[in-house]
Amino acid sequence: MPNKAAPDASRRSETARRAILAAALDLVAEVGYAKLSIEGIAHAAGVGKQTIYRWWPSKGSLLFDAFLTLAGEGEATALPDTGDLAADMKMVLRATVDELNDPRFDQPMRALHTEIVHDPVLAADYVKRLDEPMRELKKQRLRAAQRVGQLIEDVDLDVAVDMLFGPVLNRWLQHTGPLTHDYVDHVVDTALRGLGPR
Amino acid sequence: MPNKAAPDASRRSETARRAILAAALDLVAEVGYAKLSIEGIAHAAGVGKQTIYRWWPSKGSLLFDAFLTLAGEGEATALPDTGDLAADMKMVLRATVDELNDPRFDQPMRALHTEIVHDPVLAADYVKRLDEPMRELKKQRLRAAQRVGQLIEDVDLDVAVDMLFGPVLNRWLQHTGPLTHDYVDHVVDTALRGLGPR
Repeated sequence: MPNKAAPDASRRSETARRAILAAALDLVAEVGYAKLSIEGIAHAAGVGKQTIYRWWPSKGSLLFDAFLTLAGEGEATALPDTGDLAADMKMVLRATVDELNDPRFDQPMRALHTEIVHDPVLAADYVKRLDEPMRELKKQRLRAAQRVGQLIEDVDLDVAVDMLFGPVLNRWLQHTGPLTHDYVDHVVDTALRGLGPR
Repeated sequence: MPNKAAPDASRRSETARRAILAAALDLVAEVGYAKLSIEGIAHAAGVGKQTIYRWWPSKGSLLFDAFLTLAGEGEATALPDTGDLAADMKMVLRATVDELNDPRFDQPMRALHTEIVHDPVLAADYVKRLDEPMRELKKQRLRAAQRVGQLIEDVDLDVAVDMLFGPVLNRWLQHTGPLTHDYVDHVVDTALRGLGPR
C-alpha cells in the first residue's frame, strides 16, 4: 500500500509541528523571550533541534507561527456588525484589552512586537500575515459604517484604523497607563466625535 | 588647596560619564542593541567596565540616559503655540517623523522601546522621566487650545494625546507603513475632525 506512508509521515509532521508551537508558547510564558531557546523548545516538545531548524529560521519566526496559532483559536472572519459602529468598536477593543491583559497572550505578543521592532524580515511577515488581513477586516467594518452614514466618507481608512487601534496597542507596549474598558470606550467616543469643536 | 580635589574629581567623572553616553549611542547605531555590550562601551569610552556598572544597573538603563542626552539637545520646554492647533501639531509631528527617520535616533529609540516592552522597572523610569514630562507639555498645548475654542472642553486629555501621537509611534515601531509628513497631516486633521459624521 504505497499510498499509506505519505499520509502517516505527514500526520507525524503535523503532530510534531503542533507540539513545537505549543511548547514555544508555554515556554515563552514561563521564562520570557530572552531566555527562550530552540534547545528548550525542542526538549519540551520531544523533538530534535534539527526538526525545528528545518522549519523555522529563527526563534522569532517560530514564535510568530505559534502566536498565529494562538490568535487563530476561534478567529473571527469579520468584525461584529450590529449596525452601531461605536458599540461594535468598543466590543472589539474591550476584547483586545482582555486579551492583552491575559498573561497567556501578553508574553508571546510582547516578544513578537519586540522582534518586529528590530527584525525587518519578520516585520514584513507580520504585516503580510497578521496586520494586513486584520486591517482589511477592520476596514470592511468601517466601509459598512460609511454606507450607513456612521463614518465620514472622505477619510483615509488606514488613518481611521490607526486612530482606533493605535492608542490601545501603544499604551500596552509602553506601559503608559492602565488598559481598561473605560479607556477604550473613551478612545472610540473621542475618535468618532473628534477633538475639534463642532 | 583642599577644595580643588573635589571639583577636579567631579569634572573627571562628568567627562567619563559623557564619554560613556556618547560611546553607547555610537555603538548601538553601529552594531544594534542585541550586540551592544557594556564591555564594548567601556572600551570605546576608554573607561573600565566597573565605572559603568557603578553608575548603571543595565545596558537598558545606560541607553536610556544616553537617549535622554540625545533628546535633550535643543530640547523644547514647550510645544509651539502659533494660535493654530492643527498647524502646531503638524509641525511637532513632522519633526517627530524626521527624527524617527534619522538613523542616529532610530536605533537607540528602537532599543529603548524594546527594553520598555519587557522591563517594567525601565518602563516606569521611562514613564516618569520622559513620557510624563513630554505628555505634560502636550497637554499644556491642548489646554491652551481649549481656552481659545480649538479643542472640545470635555475631552480626556490623555486620550487626546494618545490619539495624536500614538498612531505615528505605532507605525514606526511596527513598520506598518511609511512615516511621512503627509501621514501625520492626515492624522492631525482626522483626529480634530473626528471619524463620525457632523
